[in-house]
Amino acid sequence: MAKLIVAVDLGASKILAGIASADGRIINRKKISTNKAEGAEYILDRIALCIKEIIKENSSAGDKISGIAIATPGPLSYSDSIVWDSPNLKWGRVAVKEELEKRLGKTIIVDKDTNMAALGEYYFGRYRKFKHLLYVTVSTGIGGAVIVDHGLYRGKNGGAAEFGHMVIDPSGPYCSCGRKGCLEAMASGTALARQARVLIVQGKGQAILDCADGGEITAREVGAAARSGDYEAQTLILDLREALATGLANLVNIFDPEVLVLGGGVAMGLQDLLLEPLFSSVREKVFALNNNGLELGLTSLGEDVGLYGCMASVMFGN
Amino acid sequence: MAKLIVAVDLGASKILAGIASADGRIINRKKISTNKAEGAEYILDRIALCIKEIIKENSSAGDKISGIAIATPGPLSYSDSIVWDSPNLKWGRVAVKEELEKRLGKTIIVDKDTNMAALGEYYFGRYRKFKHLLYVTVSTGIGGAVIVDHGLYRGKNGGAAEFGHMVIDPSGPYCSCGRKGCLEAMASGTALARQARVLIVQGKGQAILDCADGGEITAREVGAAARSGDYEAQTLILDLREALATGLANLVNIFDPEVLVLGGGVAMGLQDLLLEPLFSSVREKVFALNNNGLELGLTSLGEDVGLYGCMASVMFGN
Repeated sequence: MAKLIVAVDLGASKILAGIASADGRIINRKKISTNKAEGAEYILDRIALCIKEIIKENSSAGDKISGIAIATPGPLSYSDSIVWDSPNLKWGRVAVKEELEKRLGKTIIVDKDTNMAALGEYYFGRYRKFKHLLYVTVSTGIGGAVIVDHGLYRGKNGGAAEFGHMVIDPSGPYCSCGRKGCLEAMASGTALARQARVLIVQGKGQAILDCADGGEITAREVGAAARSGDYEAQTLILDLREALATGLANLVNIFDPEVLVLGGGVAMGLQDLLLEPLFSSVREKVFALNNNGLELGLTSLGEDVGLYGCMASVMFGN
Repeated sequence: MAKLIVAVDLGASKILAGIASADGRIINRKKISTNKAEGAEYILDRIALCIKEIIKENSSAGDKISGIAIATPGPLSYSDSIVWDSPNLKWGRVAVKEELEKRLGKTIIVDKDTNMAALGEYYFGRYRKFKHLLYVTVSTGIGGAVIVDHGLYRGKNGGAAEFGHMVIDPSGPYCSCGRKGCLEAMASGTALARQARVLIVQGKGQAILDCADGGEITAREVGAAARSGDYEAQTLILDLREALATGLANLVNIFDPEVLVLGGGVAMGLQDLLLEPLFSSVREKVFALNNNGLELGLTSLGEDVGLYGCMASVMFGN
């Protein structure tokens, strides 16, 4: 008879579910594709089914589910757990908590994916219990969360920390949110892949095409080409790095955090090409006072950071 | 026998001192020029003298000074009240609290000018007691402060809320901080005056020159020309407004505040030309969730907002 926690990280491309012991050790994982194009009802059904399955597959008679938590893309209205016009999911208003509780007949904790990731880092990561912690995820999109005085800061509606939609270049490319020159439009995986495709349309980018080998071009293929010494791919990553440094430096000047933690598939996948010069550039761009004692690092929880956050929200509250 | 509070707002161009009753009514003011070029020692002497004079001129035998507080330009290291490399004052490291206490033999409360202004607004202004309050001053420079859960948020060293040095256009003009395209370099009074002088060097800007009538060109003269219907001046103000809207929208997406309060000489001086379209533009640029219930307004305390903050820091702590 064990107590178990179920954690779900809903992403635009995949749904990652985990089941953990009551003290926060992940016992098993399950990953399915989101099939975003099918719409909210379908995805909610899929999540509910995934939760039922992971419980069934990993528990015995008498085991107790001590909590279920889910991380969803934002913006998320915190008081009622309604997603408001999510650019990544292409959702309008979706009452995630209410809909899942209806499907499962159980109480569900819901929070924005980046808030959950920051909680994961705060309770389980390398930078645990830092007083003022900024979390920034660089993935297909860019998002973030902020811990202030040891607690999540959400703002009045839960809309705080939309770092990906900080405009850093009004003449920059269009963003999924409809504006121009957002950090996400300049320094996300999607932005990098788009820039690579622009090169290819111009008849350039041969090394990137070679790395893709007929498949899709994503940040991964641009990274591979850059590692092979390709000038064009390296330039694209340099541009991403510069835009990201500008965005992160803005955040350090705004929050003066103790630590800024980077997560997300692109930050992790390109860390060998990106991280050291990125962090040097951030330190050069911020005020001396804000650089004083500042830690900059990569999440130690990898792809599971959101699951750890969900577990933390069950164990310690969110 | 009265209890009195002394408040001093140190600016790059002027020092404003006030003396108030213990319940926060300003009894008298004193304004002197900063003479920034004379350096820190001179300015500290001048502040100390100004404090001694305003006490002498406005108190009787038996009156008690219940506190003295001063607002200084940032960056300010909060724990030891040392100014760190202030772009506006052109100071290196100056121990404001220690130096003033040595000169006056009394305990002095020191905080960043924008923090004091936010405190003033929080305790005495139109938006008093708002839980999450952003304060942005648009003056010769641009600065800010943030109140989170009814208290000032300072970050780890006191360096938080350097909103003026958020880069919003990497190809923009150089800033006093050495970087390019900071909000301050694009939307402050200094930026507006510089743009006007660029026009004039090009043989344009006649209406602005006429308004200056041989004197200095500042935001005020550009505003006067714009009010007279001058196209060039109106275009300059439109550019400032657009840059400011971008910066403020970024902040609303980052903080999701209950209220964003604007202060500062340029915001107040150009309010008839600026405010309504600026606020509309901000609302258009932010997420629907963040716009929900958002208040945008001008400080109701005018030039005294910093003095009110100093008084609040004596009365309620900072």
